[in-house]
Amino acid sequence: MLPSSAPRRLNQDSPKLPNLLNPVLIEVMRAARIESFHTGAVAIARADGSLVLALGDVSRPVYARSAVKALQCLPLIETGAADRFGFGAPEIALACASHTGTDRHTALCRHMLDTIGLDEPALGCGAHPPMSTSAARHLVELKAKPSQLHNNCSGKHAGMLATALHMGEATAGYWDPDHPVQQRVLAVMRDLSGLMFGPETRGTDGCSVPTWAMPLSAMAATFARLVTGEGLLADRRAAVERILASCWAEPELVAGPGRADTTVMRKLPGRIFMKTGAEGVYCGGFPELGLGFALKIDDGATRASAGATVALVERLLPDARGLMDRAIIKSWRGVEVGSIRTSGELQRALDGVKV
Amino acid sequence: MLPSSAPRRLNQDSPKLPNLLNPVLIEVMRAARIESFHTGAVAIARADGSLVLALGDVSRPVYARSAVKALQCLPLIETGAADRFGFGAPEIALACASHTGTDRHTALCRHMLDTIGLDEPALGCGAHPPMSTSAARHLVELKAKPSQLHNNCSGKHAGMLATALHMGEATAGYWDPDHPVQQRVLAVMRDLSGLMFGPETRGTDGCSVPTWAMPLSAMAATFARLVTGEGLLADRRAAVERILASCWAEPELVAGPGRADTTVMRKLPGRIFMKTGAEGVYCGGFPELGLGFALKIDDGATRASAGATVALVERLLPDARGLMDRAIIKSWRGVEVGSIRTSGELQRALDGVKV
Repeated sequence: MLPSSAPRRLNQDSPKLPNLLNPVLIEVMRAARIESFHTGAVAIARADGSLVLALGDVSRPVYARSAVKALQCLPLIETGAADRFGFGAPEIALACASHTGTDRHTALCRHMLDTIGLDEPALGCGAHPPMSTSAARHLVELKAKPSQLHNNCSGKHAGMLATALHMGEATAGYWDPDHPVQQRVLAVMRDLSGLMFGPETRGTDGCSVPTWAMPLSAMAATFARLVTGEGLLADRRAAVERILASCWAEPELVAGPGRADTTVMRKLPGRIFMKTGAEGVYCGGFPELGLGFALKIDDGATRASAGATVALVERLLPDARGLMDRAIIKSWRGVEVGSIRTSGELQRALDGVKV
Repeated sequence: MLPSSAPRRLNQDSPKLPNLLNPVLIEVMRAARIESFHTGAVAIARADGSLVLALGDVSRPVYARSAVKALQCLPLIETGAADRFGFGAPEIALACASHTGTDRHTALCRHMLDTIGLDEPALGCGAHPPMSTSAARHLVELKAKPSQLHNNCSGKHAGMLATALHMGEATAGYWDPDHPVQQRVLAVMRDLSGLMFGPETRGTDGCSVPTWAMPLSAMAATFARLVTGEGLLADRRAAVERILASCWAEPELVAGPGRADTTVMRKLPGRIFMKTGAEGVYCGGFPELGLGFALKIDDGATRASAGATVALVERLLPDARGLMDRAIIKSWRGVEVGSIRTSGELQRALDGVKV
């Protein structure tokens, strides 16, 4: 914890309407017109919490969803569970992943469960078809149903089960907010963000574990702390470094082929950590710059959160242009009819960031 | 055409940023918080163009996409092509459809092509997997690739081919803006909307035919004219009535099981005509009220456009509550974790409409 940032209680007004003045971040073009557009907010912060960029309302608490899986993974390291079960970079990367359910992902998750002596039904994440369209198609061809192993969160859940077993806790109900597994995650979130996380900030994620709402400004500072280690005790710093190194060593396991997290971290290991979350959230950090970022697309669209994040990375690491192909919209016959582009306002805001 | 509304030239400023003051129409809740939200604009108008409701910026031209398929279908009737080929309610409904690619949809499209002596490669819409997840799964199980018949627009394209053949025109390139097929569609759009549609209002739809940008206010008035017949010559009025009656007789063909258009028009035939378009557009009309409506979600999300449309229908036809199940967000284990709901601002605006 940073001594300088005392815990702040989050605003308790629950379902108030958010600030509507968020700027357009992403424009969806068809011919020469903006057909659709995505508004949102972006925070870039230093580890001390000072903001380098605050575009839009960065104070409204938003659910962090899967963007904070690296934090949810910390107890797996800090309790000693990862060492106990011999989990290396692949297992740790999968525990931080929103993976696409390919054979490699599911086999590794099954291996984690085998190692701790449990089977697929012990997972509480629920089943959904693989996010990878080819993996999903393959499953249908086999006339097989998706299992919980295919859930994009299955690695996180296997890690949570490993932690519970290592600590001698019940594995049933490890997803409940009161279970020690989730209490440890909450303590990590509280320590690293400096926020109190009252019950009014808690929602339930699609994979059944709690998800916590926090301002983008705090998310960005949290990720600056993660990638710099500033303000962290030595043990935590080592645990965080191990998590980041695992994700950089195994970027395919953190997401999957073609996904922004995998593509960008494969090209820039050690220079950018980034992680997507559902409903248009993105978080990450730049070790060499000492900066963290967080953004949320108001409407929850991934096409916009990924586009804005790649624009942000390309701006802050100017030697790393062309990270992803230009986002082109094609007709079903393959002809370009539009594109997805960064708005002028986002580009100007990013251009104004002094790094 | 209404003698009272002289053609108005659309604003030519091309990619200007839209009005950002559009209100929140739909809120995506998780626990007690608004996790994401969708802004947009709604117009409700009479056939004379007067607005009954203008919520948000209803003057910005937006691409009508598939929401105007009933207009794109008019030449099929008016040229005599439908009669020539013996197309009844099913074929006409499919020509107005964004269908889900079930066996019934594809078989009927193939029948239309057989009837006019053409085969699947004559279509120009391109192929995509069926929108119906069960139809898509079935295709994968058969290890078959989607054909152009599965394209949600294949019925519209079969109708366009029928019109070209009937008129003795080339079938190749019937999707090009300069082809008589598209010129006839443009004339219908111009007549019914009172707009000029300069080249700056033209984009290319995903199925390769032109799509035209128009203000929501004009779309709403256009649909009021469609469902009332006001200002239409007798022949056109008869053609429009035939199209509407076909869609009401065969609502499963206009979309597919579970889709809003099918569900609502099956329950309220003759009382509401509605049609979705890509990127969050919806249009429709209420014959008994003499009203048309059009709405556009700024970010293009269908979860929001369908939700706002159902709220609008339930408000304007108060005896028709409970048209669709409440939109619940569940975890992958089937537990309710959130919901999608109408915003207070949309509800108040709809409550204020005098019908």
